[in-house]
Amino acid sequence: MKIKPLGDRIVVRRYAAEEKSSGGILLPDTAKNKPQKGEVLEVGAGRLLKDGTRRPLQVKKGDTILFTSWAGDEFKERGRGDEILLMREEDVLAVLEK
Amino acid sequence: MKIKPLGDRIVVRRYAAEEKSSGGILLPDTAKNKPQKGEVLEVGAGRLLKDGTRRPLQVKKGDTILFTSWAGDEFKERGRGDEILLMREEDVLAVLEK
Amino acid sequence: MKIKPLGDRIVVRRYAAEEKSSGGILLPDTAKNKPQKGEVLEVGAGRLLKDGTRRPLQVKKGDTILFTSWAGDEFKERGRGDEILLMREEDVLAVLEK
Amino acid sequence: MKIKPLGDRIVVRRYAAEEKSSGGILLPDTAKNKPQKGEVLEVGAGRLLKDGTRRPLQVKKGDTILFTSWAGDEFKERGRGDEILLMREEDVLAVLEK
Amino acid sequence: MKIKPLGDRIVVRRYAAEEKSSGGILLPDTAKNKPQKGEVLEVGAGRLLKDGTRRPLQVKKGDTILFTSWAGDEFKERGRGDEILLMREEDVLAVLEK
Amino acid sequence: MKIKPLGDRIVVRRYAAEEKSSGGILLPDTAKNKPQKGEVLEVGAGRLLKDGTRRPLQVKKGDTILFTSWAGDEFKERGRGDEILLMREEDVLAVLEK
Amino acid sequence: MKIKPLGDRIVVRRYAAEEKSSGGILLPDTAKNKPQKGEVLEVGAGRLLKDGTRRPLQVKKGDTILFTSWAGDEFKERGRGDEILLMREEDVLAVLEK
Repeated sequence: MKIKPLGDRIVVRRYAAEEKSSGGILLPDTAKNKPQKGEVLEVGAGRLLKDGTRRPLQVKKGDTILFTSWAGDEFKERGRGDEILLMREEDVLAVLEK
Repeated sequence: MKIKPLGDRIVVRRYAAEEKSSGGILLPDTAKNKPQKGEVLEVGAGRLLKDGTRRPLQVKKGDTILFTSWAGDEFKERGRGDEILLMREEDVLAVLEK
Repeated sequence: MKIKPLGDRIVVRRYAAEEKSSGGILLPDTAKNKPQKGEVLEVGAGRLLKDGTRRPLQVKKGDTILFTSWAGDEFKERGRGDEILLMREEDVLAVLEK
Repeated sequence: MKIKPLGDRIVVRRYAAEEKSSGGILLPDTAKNKPQKGEVLEVGAGRLLKDGTRRPLQVKKGDTILFTSWAGDEFKERGRGDEILLMREEDVLAVLEK
Repeated sequence: MKIKPLGDRIVVRRYAAEEKSSGGILLPDTAKNKPQKGEVLEVGAGRLLKDGTRRPLQVKKGDTILFTSWAGDEFKERGRGDEILLMREEDVLAVLEK
Repeated sequence: MKIKPLGDRIVVRRYAAEEKSSGGILLPDTAKNKPQKGEVLEVGAGRLLKDGTRRPLQVKKGDTILFTSWAGDEFKERGRGDEILLMREEDVLAVLEK
Repeated sequence: MKIKPLGDRIVVRRYAAEEKSSGGILLPDTAKNKPQKGEVLEVGAGRLLKDGTRRPLQVKKGDTILFTSWAGDEFKERGRGDEILLMREEDVLAVLEK
């Protein structure tokens, strides 16, 4: 079964463990008001505009993103520790580029 | 008797029991702030625009959807455990495709 | 004396007793956050638009409707148990078709 | 001295006593959240639009109206029990026609 | 020194004492939620519109006005009991014409 | 170092002491909900409009202004008692002309 | 790894210690409601407008800025005392020019 988000919504897997990458940024994943880190799993077709067209999203499947800690409605996949979130693109703060 | 929602409203049957599908997604149906799962029973004719036309809905009758836990006004059908909700399409998070 | 609602307002008689119709839908009329059921008694001429025209209402006199439980300002008619409500059309959730 | 309301404001005399008209509608005048009844004494010239024109009011001097119980700023005329209110037309629910 | 209000703001002198004019309207000046009475001392040049023009005010210097009791930021002139208020024109309810 | 405010923001020096000018207006500088008095030190380039142009500010460097008591983010200059505030022009109530 | 902010967002390094520059402005960095000082590390591509173009940001990489104390979501870089914030450009109060 595949989750297809509506409009400007995206599906994100939040990284479950604190990541201490060699690049130097350390992001605690549960602290309050701290940006959260995750991977974009699915994106919607974009917000439906009044003229019937859609404005495509700026993030794409596979992007590593930072998002606000209060973003999204969360649920879990069976047998995995990671949390899955359904959020709007406006809750995405930044894309992490390697 | 048939319920015909106005504008961008839809009628949804919320699944009463926790579903443990083989596909792997597990969605507790009563937890707070968790997306809820249900089936679209009826859809409105779409939001009436200022020029007199209507913007058709993106979900359709028969779709399995995820929606926010606080969505809709609920009532019950006689002799069934499932809850029926009247909500706006903007409360729909995603469509589940098989 | 006749009540003529202004703009997009309507006059609704809320059904006083719980209705157990053969069609199967059971709607408690006083429960909190449950849709309420009633009959449209009068409708306004429609919202006055900026260009001087009016957008006609989607519900009409005689319709049986569902509406949000917090809709409207209520008053009573003499010698009747039913409540009369003055509400905006946007508080109407659905029309019940037979 | 004459009170000339600005824009879409109107001056209304609220009926002081409960009215039990033969027509059958009974409207307690002080109950909370109940529509109030009164007579339009003065109307403004209408809301000033961006193009410099005004949108005329829908109610007129002499109309008997129902309005929300929280509408308006009130004051009293000397030697009378009725209350005078200054409200916006959007607080008017309906016009009572004989 | 002269106070020149910006945009749609006006300077108003609130009448300090309760006025019992022969015309019959009695307006307590300090009661809560009662309209207040005063005289317009200065008016701004009008709200600056997007096209660079200004929409002139509807009240003018010298007008006796009613305004909401919570309107404006107040200060005092030296050696006078009257209060001076700086308010927006939208807080003006009506103009009193003789 | 010079502070250059963004958009429609301005830098204001709030007068530290109560001023009893001969002109007659007395403005306590710390009272709650009383207009505050100060001097405009810097103004932004104006709000950036959608078409890429800017709407210039109505106040200018050197103006003596009245502003709402809750306006702005404040900080202090070294070795001075006056407070410096960064506020939006919309918090300015009036310009004092000599 | 590089943080690329979305839209009108920027990445800012907040100065950790109170700065007592010779120029005379003293800005406590943790006081409540005091403007904060920092350096712009990265800027987004600008807000996406309805016609598909973007409105470029007014601040640029390397600018020293003042921003509101409640601006942004913060996180830390490994092995540094400075805080990194992700904020919207509208939270920037002023640019400090040397």
